[in-house]
Amino acid sequence: MKKHFLILVAFGALTLTGFAQQDNVDPVIMQKIRNEGLNNSQVMKTAFYLTDVSGPRLSNSPGLKRAQDWAVNTLKSYGLKNVKLEPWGKFGKGWQVEKNYVAMIAPYYHAIIATPKAWTPGTNGAVKSDVVIIDITKIDTILKMDPFKGKLKGKIVIFDSPASLAPTFRADANRYTEDELSKIAEPQTAQPARQGAGAGANANQMAQLRRVRAMRTQIGEFLKAEGAGLLLSMGRGAHGTLFTTNGASYAEDAAPVLPELEMSPEDYLRIVRLVKAGIKVELEADIKTQFFNNDLQGYNVIAEIPGTDKDLKDELVMLGGHLDSWHAATGATDNAAGCAVMMEAVRIIAAQNLNPKRTIRIALWSSEEQGLFGSRGYVANHFGNPRTMELKPEHEKVSAYYNLDNGTGKIRGIYLQGNNAAAPIFQTWLSPFKDLDATTITSRNTGGTDHLAFDAVGIPGFQFIQDGIDYNTRTHHSNMDTYDRLIADDLKQSATIIAALVYNTAQRQAKIPRKELPKAQGTN
Amino acid sequence: MKKHFLILVAFGALTLTGFAQQDNVDPVIMQKIRNEGLNNSQVMKTAFYLTDVSGPRLSNSPGLKRAQDWAVNTLKSYGLKNVKLEPWGKFGKGWQVEKNYVAMIAPYYHAIIATPKAWTPGTNGAVKSDVVIIDITKIDTILKMDPFKGKLKGKIVIFDSPASLAPTFRADANRYTEDELSKIAEPQTAQPARQGAGAGANANQMAQLRRVRAMRTQIGEFLKAEGAGLLLSMGRGAHGTLFTTNGASYAEDAAPVLPELEMSPEDYLRIVRLVKAGIKVELEADIKTQFFNNDLQGYNVIAEIPGTDKDLKDELVMLGGHLDSWHAATGATDNAAGCAVMMEAVRIIAAQNLNPKRTIRIALWSSEEQGLFGSRGYVANHFGNPRTMELKPEHEKVSAYYNLDNGTGKIRGIYLQGNNAAAPIFQTWLSPFKDLDATTITSRNTGGTDHLAFDAVGIPGFQFIQDGIDYNTRTHHSNMDTYDRLIADDLKQSATIIAALVYNTAQRQAKIPRKELPKAQGTN
Repeated sequence: MKKHFLILVAFGALTLTGFAQQDNVDPVIMQKIRNEGLNNSQVMKTAFYLTDVSGPRLSNSPGLKRAQDWAVNTLKSYGLKNVKLEPWGKFGKGWQVEKNYVAMIAPYYHAIIATPKAWTPGTNGAVKSDVVIIDITKIDTILKMDPFKGKLKGKIVIFDSPASLAPTFRADANRYTEDELSKIAEPQTAQPARQGAGAGANANQMAQLRRVRAMRTQIGEFLKAEGAGLLLSMGRGAHGTLFTTNGASYAEDAAPVLPELEMSPEDYLRIVRLVKAGIKVELEADIKTQFFNNDLQGYNVIAEIPGTDKDLKDELVMLGGHLDSWHAATGATDNAAGCAVMMEAVRIIAAQNLNPKRTIRIALWSSEEQGLFGSRGYVANHFGNPRTMELKPEHEKVSAYYNLDNGTGKIRGIYLQGNNAAAPIFQTWLSPFKDLDATTITSRNTGGTDHLAFDAVGIPGFQFIQDGIDYNTRTHHSNMDTYDRLIADDLKQSATIIAALVYNTAQRQAKIPRKELPKAQGTN
Repeated sequence: MKKHFLILVAFGALTLTGFAQQDNVDPVIMQKIRNEGLNNSQVMKTAFYLTDVSGPRLSNSPGLKRAQDWAVNTLKSYGLKNVKLEPWGKFGKGWQVEKNYVAMIAPYYHAIIATPKAWTPGTNGAVKSDVVIIDITKIDTILKMDPFKGKLKGKIVIFDSPASLAPTFRADANRYTEDELSKIAEPQTAQPARQGAGAGANANQMAQLRRVRAMRTQIGEFLKAEGAGLLLSMGRGAHGTLFTTNGASYAEDAAPVLPELEMSPEDYLRIVRLVKAGIKVELEADIKTQFFNNDLQGYNVIAEIPGTDKDLKDELVMLGGHLDSWHAATGATDNAAGCAVMMEAVRIIAAQNLNPKRTIRIALWSSEEQGLFGSRGYVANHFGNPRTMELKPEHEKVSAYYNLDNGTGKIRGIYLQGNNAAAPIFQTWLSPFKDLDATTITSRNTGGTDHLAFDAVGIPGFQFIQDGIDYNTRTHHSNMDTYDRLIADDLKQSATIIAALVYNTAQRQAKIPRKELPKAQGTN
């Protein structure tokens, strides 16, 4: 089979044969799981309700509440127990878009693709103004602001940009090749640089970026004081795809900011070019956003398949994904996909009456997008404090936590997060699914999502290797993260494999081995 | 060099040596053209004025008029003579979008990416309604319409669709490989199937498509009679890219139709899924479109660099592209690119004071998108009638017409349109530009644009082989056909090569050889 897989087989055979027997899988049960997951799947129906029906699911928004309520009812309908919305701590304000209209009306009419930045206010009715351009790289202008003083009341303001777009000679979507998986299977030599907006920037460019960001805050305050009407920002993306962010804090006491729209680069750059050529550009906009501060708590959806073994039923296997999303679409790949797969995994186990020995607990987190708050809060409430490493009794009870949060792509393997003792276990447990292409086991870490909350207190937390598809190019935090982006076969595969792993974890004689406990982090 | 190029060299050397001497190129002039085209280029400035500044350029719209006026003034500023807007015949009404707002307001708010279909009316103020779905494949429903009778007054209507979107594992943009160019260089064995919306459909599917289209017209009339408020159609495309069409006739006496929006598939399919799941979907829309019927004539921009040779100055070399575009963007690749390149080609020749022997005449056509009307009208007025093959005296004077209309991609060669006698001429004329990758000469035909108008009356009309870039995937007739899609280096290359070819055609002792005159087509 695959090279890296063979290496790990050899590794397991030589050094960890003791695990081999206890990690044997029950082929009858595995076949039941496979049949339920691949042939009776509900995963796309679940995804439909979490995306199309619930809408955008920004933390503490009505959309998230709809999805949470639907998930609670649906998990109950699967026969799960102790189904509840469990508060994890204080988050802040909810927010949603209630009207989003902006268009260029001079030199000619052109509708604009844009979205309000999260947690920014609306325009308080329709506004209309010519566009004023500010070059925030010009320090003198920033500091003195003489050219703009008293001239910005009600104005729509754009920031100069030297950006241009280029055609994409690489496919939007891809799957891992065997070669790429082999590389992932190799031990990590150094933490890879985080991909993102700043990817590819050198040290100087990063310094410039930080300087501009700092100035941008200063200018924001100046513009607010001057009474500007609306700020325009350029979103990352192209061809109508627009990646979104927040434009203000969700904190209860956040300082007020100006209305701000994130625009498609095509629309943004057209305005920049026209204004810089001395052509008067006029825009009209009517943005309405709504804040919700009646309940500042954050909640996770929690549900259980109770364990049935008298000695093991108080122990836990957990699985989860985050239910919150960004606001410009319905968060299909980030992360309705992960939630739908996890809900489907417990549905498979419940539907097949597998009566696990340990209790299986699913969690659909919130506020992942603002800093893994839901999972971190849950871990702090139940398991321990990663800063002090003061642990709670329940800490000892958890065998493992499984997380899925990298889009719609099927599972190609698992990140051990440095927990090498778990390698032969997963090697055995994945072996019945070789034909489904999930064979890579890597000691490497992967970051950015909720398994880190568990890993931070020394509970085995695993995130899967998933085919990227168009997560980084089209969907992750974008206005195009819709139900259409989901690949049914991939989600079915993921749910089937996770159901098997979760079930096996629940049945295993011992808990999943743990890494050495982390040291207290101190305050951070 | 390239295989197909070598074959043609051999062909030329063996059979057409007589041309070799007269088609020698003047290296000093070629260097002047290259320097002006590559180092002093104005092509992106021209493209900026034709796109960003002029706006969408639908036939007979104010945007087209702005671009035509700018082109007339700019061609005059280059020193061209006889610069004018020349009427080619009656077209019909102009039309433009003046407001384009549509959003889903229940079950939650979601702004929609959509554009009115060309020549459809607006909504006469803001409208709001739940969405009614019609499955037009169900003949019974279509014919009886009982379920809808009397229930559609003011309603927003969507048509059911079984479509779904898939990730794109092929790059949006590409350039021709040497292999692909070699294939293009081979003689055509059969007319290739036209790529387009129906590409890949089998005969049954095509029949179904035609049946549905026919029913759609019937239903349109029914819906109009029932007083429906707005029709929704699904545009081709994905990720925010939306390909647009017309929804009604531009004819002066066109029958009135309902307002109709072409929507991004993501927004369209979400509504279809929700409505089919029994969830009430409400939309609000405010669409304003404006018709212009004060002047129903169509116009081409015409300008000349007068010939300077006493025997040849009454003869012509023509070059052109169409200035009209679709309405959802600014028609950058279709076809501001071609117009900017052609304007740049004559600018290069004028700026370098090359004083051509024959007169060089540039034409920027209109109404190409509705059926090559501008070029066909011009040809009929000046050169002859392709149906009867009654020819006018000017027919004899034209050496060749060069056209550019396949996007932003650089020139990789030329289609001879079956005029094989021209092969060795272009082989010689392209030879100084080998380093610019424009080496392929093919006897093949290419269709779909204005050189056909000339070819139809037996005047040599040539269109170039161009790298596709993202013309078919992202830009051709889409809402994303913006200035951002233009590649400056490619446009400079095209302008340089066309300037050289046009100049050489003007200097050549004889006119470009012609194919046998076409037979009269009869009425069609």
